Amino acid sequence: MQLISMIEDMAKQAKSASRQLRRLEREPKDDALRLMATRLMERQADIIKENKKDLSKAKEAGLTPAMIDRLALDETIIKEMADGLEEVAALPDPVGEVTGTWKRPNGLLVRKVRIPLGVIGFIYESRPNVTVDAASLCLKSGNAVILKGGSEALSSNLILADLLGGALKESGLPPEAIQVIPSTDREAVSILIGLDDFLDIIIARGGEGLIRFVTNHSKVPVLKHYKGVCHIYVDKFADLEMAKNVVFNAKVQRPGVCNAVETLLVHKSIADSFLPSMSELFRDAGVEIRGCPETAKLVPWAKPAFKGDWGEEFLDLIIAVKVVSDMREALDHIEKYGSNHTEAIITNDHERSGRFLAEVDSSVVLVNASTRFNDGNQLGLGAEIGINTSKIHAFGPMGLEELTTTKFVVHGDGQVRT
Amino acid sequence: MQLISMIEDMAKQAKSASRQLRRLEREPKDDALRLMATRLMERQADIIKENKKDLSKAKEAGLTPAMIDRLALDETIIKEMADGLEEVAALPDPVGEVTGTWKRPNGLLVRKVRIPLGVIGFIYESRPNVTVDAASLCLKSGNAVILKGGSEALSSNLILADLLGGALKESGLPPEAIQVIPSTDREAVSILIGLDDFLDIIIARGGEGLIRFVTNHSKVPVLKHYKGVCHIYVDKFADLEMAKNVVFNAKVQRPGVCNAVETLLVHKSIADSFLPSMSELFRDAGVEIRGCPETAKLVPWAKPAFKGDWGEEFLDLIIAVKVVSDMREALDHIEKYGSNHTEAIITNDHERSGRFLAEVDSSVVLVNASTRFNDGNQLGLGAEIGINTSKIHAFGPMGLEELTTTKFVVHGDGQVRT
Repeated sequence: MQLISMIEDMAKQAKSASRQLRRLEREPKDDALRLMATRLMERQADIIKENKKDLSKAKEAGLTPAMIDRLALDETIIKEMADGLEEVAALPDPVGEVTGTWKRPNGLLVRKVRIPLGVIGFIYESRPNVTVDAASLCLKSGNAVILKGGSEALSSNLILADLLGGALKESGLPPEAIQVIPSTDREAVSILIGLDDFLDIIIARGGEGLIRFVTNHSKVPVLKHYKGVCHIYVDKFADLEMAKNVVFNAKVQRPGVCNAVETLLVHKSIADSFLPSMSELFRDAGVEIRGCPETAKLVPWAKPAFKGDWGEEFLDLIIAVKVVSDMREALDHIEKYGSNHTEAIITNDHERSGRFLAEVDSSVVLVNASTRFNDGNQLGLGAEIGINTSKIHAFGPMGLEELTTTKFVVHGDGQVRT
Repeated sequence: MQLISMIEDMAKQAKSASRQLRRLEREPKDDALRLMATRLMERQADIIKENKKDLSKAKEAGLTPAMIDRLALDETIIKEMADGLEEVAALPDPVGEVTGTWKRPNGLLVRKVRIPLGVIGFIYESRPNVTVDAASLCLKSGNAVILKGGSEALSSNLILADLLGGALKESGLPPEAIQVIPSTDREAVSILIGLDDFLDIIIARGGEGLIRFVTNHSKVPVLKHYKGVCHIYVDKFADLEMAKNVVFNAKVQRPGVCNAVETLLVHKSIADSFLPSMSELFRDAGVEIRGCPETAKLVPWAKPAFKGDWGEEFLDLIIAVKVVSDMREALDHIEKYGSNHTEAIITNDHERSGRFLAEVDSSVVLVNASTRFNDGNQLGLGAEIGINTSKIHAFGPMGLEELTTTKFVVHGDGQVRT
């Protein structure tokens, strides 16, 4: 079958499935999620076998060891995927929640009620466990999902989709609620984002090229998990020991993720008491510092920062460091180079933290805590499908509630407009 | 100056203005809105003079009397615009509202706080008073706005923008918070929707051609005020007098708007006691009925409905009527032909209304009330910038709250990820 008609058929079936899903109470959804966990554990060997196909193709194609590592599934990761399914089953169901009720002067009773979005297209370039995470969140929130993962993970994603769909069928739910596009053709993305008659939303999570392509060409509204150029500003009233600990954590604990810090801004009045010892910690951890001229004076081994280093998402053991003359300069720098993702201030001054929190236009703004906390689990959303860096719908980490919308339900007794 | 660099400059200035706006308390915004109302009343004569330029061009261009009527501003409409500004000033400010607070096991205090979206591009084909309504809602919610109205209203829109901008300046606020694109070139729309570095959202409100163009080409996320193919289902347990009253109101009170009913679905068991008298009311009001074969038996003067009449947005004194054998058929019809806008059921049966409300996937679903209530003012949102027919961000009428988003504000005392 042609790719276009195949994907259109998938979208039609997803839309039809979504009509069933939106009427479900939580029990059948939770039962299906738990059955998926069971089937996942039972079929570990098959999953690993299919994953090995992806791995050997990846080696042939000359992917980097880091990329191959991201692709690999083992028993530990499969167990984590199954645990994740159980955890999503245990979370509250957002669908049906009444978020507001009021009465109008004419007697109309108005309620706002949470409903699923409908059909979600999820386009991603991540390790195969994201397939299961995303599918479980979509199902729990009453949405059908069409998944287009990275082509390097196709065999793994297909067996996972087969297993999840099988569990849906066993549970009496439509298997078309979770579908993986069985193609490595990049054209599949173009087709999917054109199907605005069937899809309600596209969630895109991947590299800059993918995100740009999707946002520039999609007819379906896009929520994008885009880059995180996160800043920490160490204020003149900071507890410097805390600052070192937080900044170190934000850079080193997992440098390859979007909520790792990329630029450190340091108030000039504490720069000489802070930067030398901070930089020692960094040097011991193998972190490269790219500093402004003031930084260079205090950290002789720092490389000079070039213009392109400000606003760069290194995703690596590299940090840009700038000494600023006041908080205004820090705020201006963040406004100019930030990506509206995550910013933190380290200070003990209440007025100054308040100003920072109010002025910084990012999805998560923190005082005296690591940028690494911009994460649905860490912030208490239960789980996340991604971090939305556009401001519409749900700015920041998206959990179950963020995969829903609301409708107005109105009770009258014959009211008309006059 | 080239159109593209002019619009880019406007967008840059809007972004810069939005940085000031997002920090404002409500008082300066409300003061500016009240000053705008004053200036509007003072400059009535100038506004009417500029409006006359648009009117005479419209006549030369051969616009229909209805379109010319929509374009005309007089003292009554200007007074309504001024009153509207005062009303928006009196509404609560959504910005800064804390929508949730919780503490994490590690001691992090998490709050969700309402913030403005940033810069809004508003593309519309409406009467010039919408310029003032939209600008006031954007300002009150802390957003900068770039307005691209219909080319037939350009002179009117420009004097209104000049006046609003002047009032902003007088109030010490950035006049670039409200800008009208001074061009009738359709290319201006293409340019505006490409500026994803500066704009956070596009709100598009107009005919099908405009909406399709914007959603198909925009790099900026779009909320669309699209068509309303509204249905009323008269159930077998309906109060038939109430049904007649509600259906008549929904069709006749203002047929040219998106929340007017377009298709009437009637349960077969009450069709013969309902349709003949309902159709009398319609005939007296000059409403054309396009009926299914069953309808034709009961209403001999009805025209036969053709396939294209189901799902058609007539925006006129025309209604499609279908007799259905049960509620399932009504629900299937709505699923197939509805536009997710507004649907109503007339019934006294609680179980059946509950089923209708749960299954119908529209932004507003009503029991025993007119579809004409899908309106921000009527539902108690205070005012509206449009009705969003896509499910993302805010499904249905959009008031002040719907022009905001939320960010996470996190307080810690040195927490790091482990």
